[in-house]
Amino acid sequence: MNPTLRSARRVVIALGGNAMTGPDGSATPHAQRDALREAAGHIAEVVARGVQVVLTHGNGPQVGNLLVKNELAAHVVPPVPLDWCVAQTQATIAFTLTDELDAALEARGLPQRTAGLVTRTLVDVDDPHFREPSKPVGRFLPKEEAERFVSLGQVWEDRGEKGWRRVVASPEPRSVVDAPAIHALAAAGFVVVCAGGGGIPVTDDGRDGAALRGVEAVIDKDLTAAILASDLDADTLVIATDVANVMVDFGTPTARPLGRVTAAELREHAAAGQFARGSMGPKVDAVLRFLDRNDSAHPPRRAVITSLEHIADAVAGDDAGTVLTA
Amino acid sequence: MNPTLRSARRVVIALGGNAMTGPDGSATPHAQRDALREAAGHIAEVVARGVQVVLTHGNGPQVGNLLVKNELAAHVVPPVPLDWCVAQTQATIAFTLTDELDAALEARGLPQRTAGLVTRTLVDVDDPHFREPSKPVGRFLPKEEAERFVSLGQVWEDRGEKGWRRVVASPEPRSVVDAPAIHALAAAGFVVVCAGGGGIPVTDDGRDGAALRGVEAVIDKDLTAAILASDLDADTLVIATDVANVMVDFGTPTARPLGRVTAAELREHAAAGQFARGSMGPKVDAVLRFLDRNDSAHPPRRAVITSLEHIADAVAGDDAGTVLTA
Repeated sequence: MNPTLRSARRVVIALGGNAMTGPDGSATPHAQRDALREAAGHIAEVVARGVQVVLTHGNGPQVGNLLVKNELAAHVVPPVPLDWCVAQTQATIAFTLTDELDAALEARGLPQRTAGLVTRTLVDVDDPHFREPSKPVGRFLPKEEAERFVSLGQVWEDRGEKGWRRVVASPEPRSVVDAPAIHALAAAGFVVVCAGGGGIPVTDDGRDGAALRGVEAVIDKDLTAAILASDLDADTLVIATDVANVMVDFGTPTARPLGRVTAAELREHAAAGQFARGSMGPKVDAVLRFLDRNDSAHPPRRAVITSLEHIADAVAGDDAGTVLTA
Repeated sequence: MNPTLRSARRVVIALGGNAMTGPDGSATPHAQRDALREAAGHIAEVVARGVQVVLTHGNGPQVGNLLVKNELAAHVVPPVPLDWCVAQTQATIAFTLTDELDAALEARGLPQRTAGLVTRTLVDVDDPHFREPSKPVGRFLPKEEAERFVSLGQVWEDRGEKGWRRVVASPEPRSVVDAPAIHALAAAGFVVVCAGGGGIPVTDDGRDGAALRGVEAVIDKDLTAAILASDLDADTLVIATDVANVMVDFGTPTARPLGRVTAAELREHAAAGQFARGSMGPKVDAVLRFLDRNDSAHPPRRAVITSLEHIADAVAGDDAGTVLTA
């Protein structure tokens, strides 16, 4: 049987920002609820196909809001570190998604229910990204206001007309600390919402008996999804985004969508600079890593990049989205 | 065998504010981490006795901080409802506690690890407490500032010299929506941190296929702990607080600690007004409810109110704390 036509057994789905923000990108409670209600319908269709589903998701605008609150209330309430903000977004997004997905599952007569797990992701203390923070977070501020935070040890960059913006490290995810708990929940029949925002970044200083420690960083959620899918022995990784297919020659007369593609072909496109850094680039990187971690002891893996409305077909092995096989 | 001397099999421990705030009641990240590190040591000692442990916890000062942030950033970032704030505190406390408890377990050579679950608690839409909000939350404000929030639909009370303070409903917890996921994690060997702050309050409007909805309320964490312990078929409920024993005739020359006590005796003390509302009262109420929900199909239950340093002895059945039996 063609492995690209095989039905999935366990799938990790990474939801992009469009699944949890309004059309204008706003992350108000109402906008988040409306977007997640729509996403829940598509996810329930995947569950209906008899597949174990583990969900992870982004959190950019949500973290941005929390950083602004930190800043504006700092004279009354001590600000909390970025890792706390990531944790906070995990809970509010999981809360909304479990409500909406439980309803969508119930409406389809499906017995599964949803569980939201607070999830830590291990990063290396000496990850080189800590020396060169590059991921912008929070809002733009005038130079004079930004300087106050620089004096507190934060890194801010001059972004021209819009003003200054904080940048933080985006270290490589090494492992999902709570993967065994995610596995236990999935094995017990739950749809698991976990590792939101790439997971709460923690480091291990290696001392015996020392606790893990949160660090001020954000982790690329698609890279964490690739590790999670691998650790959970999922056969399929789906990166749900706002386009149906990965495009090559984007914005030119020869622009075309990628359908089925091999790792070698996709790597070639990536090497030719086809995919934008900070946009399609990390998604392509993530699906390639997921396939690379495959070994002969496991059935062949498949990874899909597509939009929410196509995820059920893509997981079932039907012709939908950009489908990557070894 | 005397049931009060029986070792516990599965225990629900409700941690009070002193387990996660500084000696001055502050809920800064450092104060929270230091307090939870100490609590983790005592909890690990309970796990070391071979007992399945499910942890729940309060969140008063933490929610208060988030409400202040909501308020001070409202002109830039849309405030989030109280149920979102409860969710946020579940994640930050679970995150800190899983880090510290995992380290404490590892240091003792114990194989168990910790998992933090985002947890919803169902309350009735028509709970009478919604008509008479009485639970103070957040900070005191001068009348003029409070009036702005009253005009937005909130209820604030004049608290005299300190100023005005918001009051919200504290409805009865009916069931812990995520109890099946908690059970699955506990059965798989995890110490589960869940139902923080009494759980995120949600209501079910009864319409087919409609999602649960968060409501602006706070639930008494000890009452939720009693329901959780019952739903999980725990044999022991421990309310960990800052005193070793429940006192009667508190503040008088005949003051004395309660050791072993029957439900009938404790109920008599409660009826005589021995326990302060909003302090020991709800804890006594919670342990009595837990025993009341016992039925003949289950082994006899035991409930303990004591301080963190005595919880391991109390769970093992040794003579510690105020121990309630049927």
